[in-house]
Amino acid sequence: MSIDTESTGSLTLSGLQRMILQMYGEKDAVRGDAATFLWLTEEFGELASALRSGTHEELAAEMADVLAWLATLANIRGVELEAAVLRKYGRACPGCQAVPCVCDPAEKP
Amino acid sequence: MSIDTESTGSLTLSGLQRMILQMYGEKDAVRGDAATFLWLTEEFGELASALRSGTHEELAAEMADVLAWLATLANIRGVELEAAVLRKYGRACPGCQAVPCVCDPAEKP
Repeated sequence: MSIDTESTGSLTLSGLQRMILQMYGEKDAVRGDAATFLWLTEEFGELASALRSGTHEELAAEMADVLAWLATLANIRGVELEAAVLRKYGRACPGCQAVPCVCDPAEKP
Repeated sequence: MSIDTESTGSLTLSGLQRMILQMYGEKDAVRGDAATFLWLTEEFGELASALRSGTHEELAAEMADVLAWLATLANIRGVELEAAVLRKYGRACPGCQAVPCVCDPAEKP
């Protein structure tokens, strides 16, 4: 399989979604969004475990799983993660409009 | 701020982490991983709400928030999301080693 990477070997958010689509798209469409959220939540719980007591490698793998299931959910619902992130965070902090963020820590830590 | 995008305007996972680091890195280091997980979890709950009853734009924005807080957590714990995803999913399905995945749906839907 030829995954969608840049010449530098870097993976874009769009590339991640295409990679997951090629690998799991057919099954994802059958499963649907609610059932997919259950799987995402299971991985989210495993991330908590790894955060508390996992090795660095286990923590990285659980973050990868959360990303993969989030990409799956985005594919099912037709959301472009890259556009969504750039729209909200691409210019500056959405709260204070500054970089770095100067929001009051009580409001946005 | 010059965000880290490719010439095509696409955002890599490494670029996302650098963007969040520039915007929130100092506060993130002070807050730590456990408190950051609480914020990530709050956004995860908002994602569930948007999935159930939000508009397409609200759903996209909640996915962006989950990604941003996951990138924050990765920054705090020194995890490279891009490397983690490519290590686990970059060749094929980690379960069956195939593209597309042919795992038994009962085991991996």
